[in-house]
Amino acid sequence: MQAKALRIHAKTRGKVEVKSKVSVRGKRELSAIYTPGVAEVCRAIARRKSEVYKYTNRWNSVAIVTDGTRVLGLGDIGPEAALPVMEGKAVIYKKFGGIDAYSICLATRNADEIVRTVKALEPNYAAINLEDIASPKCFEIYERLERKLSIPVYHDDQHGTAVIALAGLKNALKFVGKGKGARTVVNGAGAAGYGIANLLLHAGYKNLIVCDSKGALYKGRRGMNRWKAKLAGKTNSKKMKGGLKKIITGADVFIGASAPNILSESMVRSMASQPIIFALANPEPEIKREKARKAGAHIYATGRSDLPNQINNATATPGLLRGALDARARKITPKMMIAAADAIAKLVGRRSSADYIVPKLFDKRIAPAVARAVRRAAR
Amino acid sequence: MQAKALRIHAKTRGKVEVKSKVSVRGKRELSAIYTPGVAEVCRAIARRKSEVYKYTNRWNSVAIVTDGTRVLGLGDIGPEAALPVMEGKAVIYKKFGGIDAYSICLATRNADEIVRTVKALEPNYAAINLEDIASPKCFEIYERLERKLSIPVYHDDQHGTAVIALAGLKNALKFVGKGKGARTVVNGAGAAGYGIANLLLHAGYKNLIVCDSKGALYKGRRGMNRWKAKLAGKTNSKKMKGGLKKIITGADVFIGASAPNILSESMVRSMASQPIIFALANPEPEIKREKARKAGAHIYATGRSDLPNQINNATATPGLLRGALDARARKITPKMMIAAADAIAKLVGRRSSADYIVPKLFDKRIAPAVARAVRRAAR
Repeated sequence: MQAKALRIHAKTRGKVEVKSKVSVRGKRELSAIYTPGVAEVCRAIARRKSEVYKYTNRWNSVAIVTDGTRVLGLGDIGPEAALPVMEGKAVIYKKFGGIDAYSICLATRNADEIVRTVKALEPNYAAINLEDIASPKCFEIYERLERKLSIPVYHDDQHGTAVIALAGLKNALKFVGKGKGARTVVNGAGAAGYGIANLLLHAGYKNLIVCDSKGALYKGRRGMNRWKAKLAGKTNSKKMKGGLKKIITGADVFIGASAPNILSESMVRSMASQPIIFALANPEPEIKREKARKAGAHIYATGRSDLPNQINNATATPGLLRGALDARARKITPKMMIAAADAIAKLVGRRSSADYIVPKLFDKRIAPAVARAVRRAAR
Repeated sequence: MQAKALRIHAKTRGKVEVKSKVSVRGKRELSAIYTPGVAEVCRAIARRKSEVYKYTNRWNSVAIVTDGTRVLGLGDIGPEAALPVMEGKAVIYKKFGGIDAYSICLATRNADEIVRTVKALEPNYAAINLEDIASPKCFEIYERLERKLSIPVYHDDQHGTAVIALAGLKNALKFVGKGKGARTVVNGAGAAGYGIANLLLHAGYKNLIVCDSKGALYKGRRGMNRWKAKLAGKTNSKKMKGGLKKIITGADVFIGASAPNILSESMVRSMASQPIIFALANPEPEIKREKARKAGAHIYATGRSDLPNQINNATATPGLLRGALDARARKITPKMMIAAADAIAKLVGRRSSADYIVPKLFDKRIAPAVARAVRRAAR
């Protein structure tokens, strides 16, 4: 697999290129798409800025912005080494959402400078996708950009993962005959864990405890950054304290966005009946499938494409952005994300099973259905 | 023409899009170009940064950077209104040079911030093309970026125009039996005028006077910015003073990069025998073709595509950048630009005439010939 990946990349020397949408066979055509004809188009936009969405490709352009400080499970590998991932995202955006996405790997890790740079780039894009930036810096950058820009800012690690996790959870709970009151533990308070917990709260799943490496978040716990403090204030109403081993006892649902192999069989055994396990650490999950099943997990999902129940942002993001672009939304709201999750959950329909709680990544119905739901929710 | 340009742009909603270079028909292919396979590619680049040129599209990627302060003849119309021009450039880059170019229209006109932004964007691109930035700010930005970046910085208004003007001048002088000593007036000391004068000096055309709106530049003239002062120090050895009307008397060559209709018939008549007129203000030249011919112009050229002898940077730039990218050059030097001009001039060969001093824009021989010459000069 590894040698194959290197070979494919070296063969095409990159995965995306620019394609012209107009033909330029001769002077006449050139005069219309370039000087002197183009001047009239420039004037039209100068008179009325929003015409840029009519006459240029901005309406369909998304910047994938990273500083390379938290790339996949590889950590801080820098902007150059992050480029293959961003090009891969661009391929996914195009294939599944028909969106033109551009890698913007930044040679700075300073939050102020990242915010300033993205603000300066705004005129070229219809949306910004933040990607693979270390937390909690990513939260700060996201919040500042959301305030400063008049185009949607989307943080895939946070929002995309949350949408597909919510879709999966909805079907999983239905399958085991439980509801929104199910006791749920989200393990990990980085971008994905924070995003999942937040969206679950918005969607009405209130019986929630979030754990980080030091154990359960609770109101008043010392040394939390402000995002953890915010979560602590809305979850864990009984102020339970302690590590995952204690917290997970009796829980209905475990959602991990943390680290490989931190969930043991005995922890799974300590959960309530018909436990639901989302082990989303990627590529090595919090507990392997065989072990989880042996310990009694009723439903088991990961981010991996070689196992059933793939909970991966790539399923949700292209359709979600497609809908936001089509609606010319200025923000991507929780309402839009919940609509996206519902649309994905609905595609599984009556065919749901323990190994089919979300549609497969290559299911062609996903992006159109999600885009439609998001457009409607954006109104 | 204007209505047609608007119609074409509205129909395609922009002129460029992203295209995938890899196929993604199923999970297996996705696993190689995205996670988990892509991780190996990231690791290879993290180990050795230069591998980014082997495994990503960076090797072929050029950013077209503008702040929209001097777009075509339209002036300061802002970054949004500049976008159609940058997309047009991207179409030209792809068609003639096989280069993937990306619009980067910046929502800032502060030189420090433009430099900082482009520096932050460096990891994505193999070269930077500065475009349509007001002078003299464009010179300062160019010089600072050239020092700061380890990829070539190219200023099309300055360098591209200079290369094709040098190519045309070489053939024009040969045609009228004159040489490098011909007395030449460059009218205009903005980006194009500065670039042309500079390259002519590098190529050995020393009998040069540059005029701006206040008349001839000469050593010691008051109120010149440092770029004009630099030119003044290398030209006009006799320190001639006065306006164009006086300076052009007896000149062999007029090269205008200034404003419409500032060259009168009587000025042309005051020139030496067989005058050569390059009226490059675009789209309205310094003097119209009929008037120039009536006044005795022996050779007449403009930037326009509807007249013979089109002196336009679009002829030179794609091949020049192609050569620089192929050579992985760190800078674009005068030597490379002169090599490009020579290669273009040579394509006309023995078929040169008063109306054929440069090859036509759509001549397919240009880009490969220029790229080859530039690659050689870059060694």
